[in-house]
Amino acid sequence: MLVRIESQKSGQVRRVAALQKKSRLRREEGCFVVEGIKMVLEAPAERRETVYASDSFLRQGGEEQLGRLGIPYTEVSDQAFRAMTDTMTPQGILAVVRALSWNESDLYKKENALLLILENLQDPGNLGTIIRAGEGAGVTGVIMSRDTVDIYNPKVIRSTMGSIYRVPFVTAEDLAEVPARCRRHGIRSFAAHLQGTADYDEKDYQQGCAFLIGNEAAGLSRTLAEAADELVKIPMKGAVESLNAAVAASVFMYEAARQRRRGSAGKQQKQVKTGQI
Amino acid sequence: MLVRIESQKSGQVRRVAALQKKSRLRREEGCFVVEGIKMVLEAPAERRETVYASDSFLRQGGEEQLGRLGIPYTEVSDQAFRAMTDTMTPQGILAVVRALSWNESDLYKKENALLLILENLQDPGNLGTIIRAGEGAGVTGVIMSRDTVDIYNPKVIRSTMGSIYRVPFVTAEDLAEVPARCRRHGIRSFAAHLQGTADYDEKDYQQGCAFLIGNEAAGLSRTLAEAADELVKIPMKGAVESLNAAVAASVFMYEAARQRRRGSAGKQQKQVKTGQI
Repeated sequence: MLVRIESQKSGQVRRVAALQKKSRLRREEGCFVVEGIKMVLEAPAERRETVYASDSFLRQGGEEQLGRLGIPYTEVSDQAFRAMTDTMTPQGILAVVRALSWNESDLYKKENALLLILENLQDPGNLGTIIRAGEGAGVTGVIMSRDTVDIYNPKVIRSTMGSIYRVPFVTAEDLAEVPARCRRHGIRSFAAHLQGTADYDEKDYQQGCAFLIGNEAAGLSRTLAEAADELVKIPMKGAVESLNAAVAASVFMYEAARQRRRGSAGKQQKQVKTGQI
Repeated sequence: MLVRIESQKSGQVRRVAALQKKSRLRREEGCFVVEGIKMVLEAPAERRETVYASDSFLRQGGEEQLGRLGIPYTEVSDQAFRAMTDTMTPQGILAVVRALSWNESDLYKKENALLLILENLQDPGNLGTIIRAGEGAGVTGVIMSRDTVDIYNPKVIRSTMGSIYRVPFVTAEDLAEVPARCRRHGIRSFAAHLQGTADYDEKDYQQGCAFLIGNEAAGLSRTLAEAADELVKIPMKGAVESLNAAVAASVFMYEAARQRRRGSAGKQQKQVKTGQI
């Protein structure tokens, strides 16, 4: 234990509460808040600025656990913790973590890049779920528009389940120029689009590729769809007009992962059926 | 306009507010509440019990629209509407809709059934997203455990984007017996499981099949995993331990849709690569 915070009016409590709510403050200070023991432990040690643990958490095995792992923390009263937390049923532990920044140009240089280009996603759960599924599918980078929900929003962080620490991401000043930058690095860009002419599984994603996913309600802007190399669609049955953005992104990413694992793309499979091999 | 409700204390206002909040009342009355013009219009006319429209909605083109479509409605003051709505930014129109019930045994009889078996899903957004993606992928039925979040929860309804009206679903008294019932009807059941020995895309989903998806935090129970014909996994890169339930379900469903569309399964593709054809 370093110090103990009793009052919910303490400067540190107010700062954490403000970091939870204000994306501008997070940007200014270059840090964000993560909650829960899993998120705190998975944070790289050199990026953990301060860990706050509540009395209840410490009493219920937390003190022993943090001591054993050699993680310094600040003890706070349960009352003060409630003023810091963003969750309804807090675990009693959170940390202020320093933000990492990646270089956009590095994302294009990875061999067989698998990029996601996200335009104006607004639902924090969707963005976090995409980052999480992206890590699982082997995504090498995520590029977001300025108007996308803040990736350090507490709900995004929670939904990433830790992938926030591991998937490289950047915010692009002008997202519409990203497909051209991809092209210069041999990365083909595919826009998920209802007007796509080809089915998503007819394309070859084994070499460098990027998937463009648009806003939940409006889809991709015309500018961005036109900037992409190809428009592709996920075929849909019934009266479904579109898929949830995280579901659409995942269907694309896992098709790319599948092709890369199998060493063949959708087209080849079709040839088997029609006897062209 | 049939009648007009001024007060937020009106019996009808209280009933709608209670239907939004209480799953028991929804079960007792056999109805649920949908919000927004899209959800109200997509509800089959014979199932729409009462449509409530706010003054603001009616003034902003709603009166003309409902009149043109011949949809009877009850006018409510904006204040009364706010007491009925479940959303932060209400559209000013909602409807009480009669619940439909399906017969579990009918779900097994469909040719080339594509079923989802959901155990104890708790996140309303996940369940709704699964129903929506399921309709898109051609799912023929959804079977849920008793402890799954109520499908008529307002957040589930919203996330289905209208698929709630079109995808057949039932709640099974004992979910663990469902895989055996599937088997008797020639439907093979595949449990999405971290301990799966085969990758999800190595299996053939072209004939009748069912996917078992477990609780967000705990995954599938041991009982249910053992009841399934096979345990299969979605291969994951990085440090990802599991996928969001809606993402996992969608990856399975769209792989089945892909195989059925292409007329071939994952295995065949592998044979091409190794030259066995």
